[in-house]
Amino acid sequence: MATWLLVAYGSLAPSATAQELRFFDIRDFRLESGSTLPVARVAYATLGTLNADRSNAIVLPSHYAADHKGYDYLIGDGKTLDPKRYFLILTNLFANGVSSSPSNTTRPLDGPRFPAITLRDNVRAQHELLRTKLGVTRVKAVVGFSMGGQQAYQWAASHPELVENIAVICGNAKQYPFGVVRLQGSIAALKADGEFRGGNYTVAPTRGLRAFAIHYRGWALAPGAWPRDQFDRLGPAELSQFLDGLEEGFTSLDANNLLSQAETWKRHDISHTPGQARRIEQTLATLKAKVLLMPCESDQYFPLADAEFEAKHIRAVTLAPIKSVMGHTAGGGNDPTATQFINTQLRTLLEPPPAPTP
Amino acid sequence: MATWLLVAYGSLAPSATAQELRFFDIRDFRLESGSTLPVARVAYATLGTLNADRSNAIVLPSHYAADHKGYDYLIGDGKTLDPKRYFLILTNLFANGVSSSPSNTTRPLDGPRFPAITLRDNVRAQHELLRTKLGVTRVKAVVGFSMGGQQAYQWAASHPELVENIAVICGNAKQYPFGVVRLQGSIAALKADGEFRGGNYTVAPTRGLRAFAIHYRGWALAPGAWPRDQFDRLGPAELSQFLDGLEEGFTSLDANNLLSQAETWKRHDISHTPGQARRIEQTLATLKAKVLLMPCESDQYFPLADAEFEAKHIRAVTLAPIKSVMGHTAGGGNDPTATQFINTQLRTLLEPPPAPTP
Repeated sequence: MATWLLVAYGSLAPSATAQELRFFDIRDFRLESGSTLPVARVAYATLGTLNADRSNAIVLPSHYAADHKGYDYLIGDGKTLDPKRYFLILTNLFANGVSSSPSNTTRPLDGPRFPAITLRDNVRAQHELLRTKLGVTRVKAVVGFSMGGQQAYQWAASHPELVENIAVICGNAKQYPFGVVRLQGSIAALKADGEFRGGNYTVAPTRGLRAFAIHYRGWALAPGAWPRDQFDRLGPAELSQFLDGLEEGFTSLDANNLLSQAETWKRHDISHTPGQARRIEQTLATLKAKVLLMPCESDQYFPLADAEFEAKHIRAVTLAPIKSVMGHTAGGGNDPTATQFINTQLRTLLEPPPAPTP
Repeated sequence: MATWLLVAYGSLAPSATAQELRFFDIRDFRLESGSTLPVARVAYATLGTLNADRSNAIVLPSHYAADHKGYDYLIGDGKTLDPKRYFLILTNLFANGVSSSPSNTTRPLDGPRFPAITLRDNVRAQHELLRTKLGVTRVKAVVGFSMGGQQAYQWAASHPELVENIAVICGNAKQYPFGVVRLQGSIAALKADGEFRGGNYTVAPTRGLRAFAIHYRGWALAPGAWPRDQFDRLGPAELSQFLDGLEEGFTSLDANNLLSQAETWKRHDISHTPGQARRIEQTLATLKAKVLLMPCESDQYFPLADAEFEAKHIRAVTLAPIKSVMGHTAGGGNDPTATQFINTQLRTLLEPPPAPTP
């Protein structure tokens, strides 16, 4: 299958930046839901070194069904996030199968019994990691794609005193109703498989995982990414094989992990941050960090109009839409021109040109 | 549930125009696939009367999961398709459960054994009905929404000598790859249900049908149709109930019927009409009918760009995009302003103002 079909769904290829995975455990981690994880494990990696004045830390939270290896398109020589300059902290989302997840938590919180997680829970655990383990007291930036961008927003809302900049690439400040309905479609497709058994499956619900995957294929790329004559030279058997191929990609992943992350996604709303009045416009207006919003004009997950709406309410904002026909995946490294644009915008955020002397 | 959530999925309410259903049977109907239906039944209704010079017949082919009652928003007093003026022929798509379908065909062609059907098969059967039963020798217009619009295009391609006008509302001349992938998502969601058993279900695959329904909910309406604060005043239980409600709507329908119609949809391509060279641009250029294209600017099934592409290749075309945030459903009567626009455009097509005398 073509690489461009996979890119938005996690780091299925080895990472070019080859970070070493580390683990940070928090005992008795109380979740926003009221449940407690006896051990909340945040899997993470770092690149580069914290400088003397502790001013170069950048957090990159992982996106849906991905892990800490998902940001290679922004990291390294010739890209903006150069480990020689920045201390990069790459975190794994709870329930992604590497940090604490349904698949790796022991009874009685395993599988479908794994408690509901919010992005605020994730950000609080990441903050603990930075504070107690990594000695980070200022965050130069939080940079994230998709659910990573949602975490960037949450960082700015939860820690206004700490975060200087955020870059939200194809993300949003709240999962709006349309997005909830879209996610619900994928959730229902997976759960339709009789083998799912309320999450207590004994064999993987493969049909459901395949239905989940093809659901994502339709949404992840914009119509313009599919050439109108793409299937013209395929016979019926070849077309069928191609469509079958589109159902691959999630079958190796754990169903409960995917569902738990989807529920986290559905619950995202920075206006529910303690102290906020549950009015998204008001919460956006309280953000102190400089905000770089990079929606993609053809994104079917996070419509451009939502970013335009959010930008209107943020004090210090740059709205820089990505021009691409690759839909959501354009923000995840799937379009070389878009990747270059994102790197350039990110550089301007992190290293603004000096103001001209009068 | 709100009516606007249902409108695109067939006529779940009684028809305001209350047509009497009739049946037209064709013996030994050979399909494009090579299979033969011993009896191909076209269920249809008519409104109005064929005039003396047989110049007022208008065909309205049903759309996906709908039936002959799906065009009330265009028919009657104050609307363009007035039965006092026109002879309206409302046809049911094969596999919709009323015309010949998996659910009503006897062994050995019942259920999953029902043969693959193309829109050309449908149009050929409709043509037989008009020719041999209704005495229609000229077609003033074929007017259709969604798969109905696809049939309008196919009528123009199959019977260039017969069809004077077509109006394609949120439809296309070919199911382009993006649309195939989207349909495949719904198909996989339904089939994920273990109860489906390759179409040989003994109880309805309800989980699959519900997953199919919520898949459609996400696509049928554009993001702008979902107010950003729509869920803000719902508690978790209410939200869950709302989302459950979105899974209703297809559970009373037959799974094999839905899948058969989806396969028909996937196969749509007027450039495969006998005599055509399987190049969509060329086939569009051969159309003789006047074509009114009414895509909706926010349609996620049939993107505006595809209609713009098609319009470029048609000789006599009016491209009149519908302005609406209601997505695909705007073309199906779900947006009063759009409905008025469609009626007006249709009137201009059917009753063009006289050319000014010099």
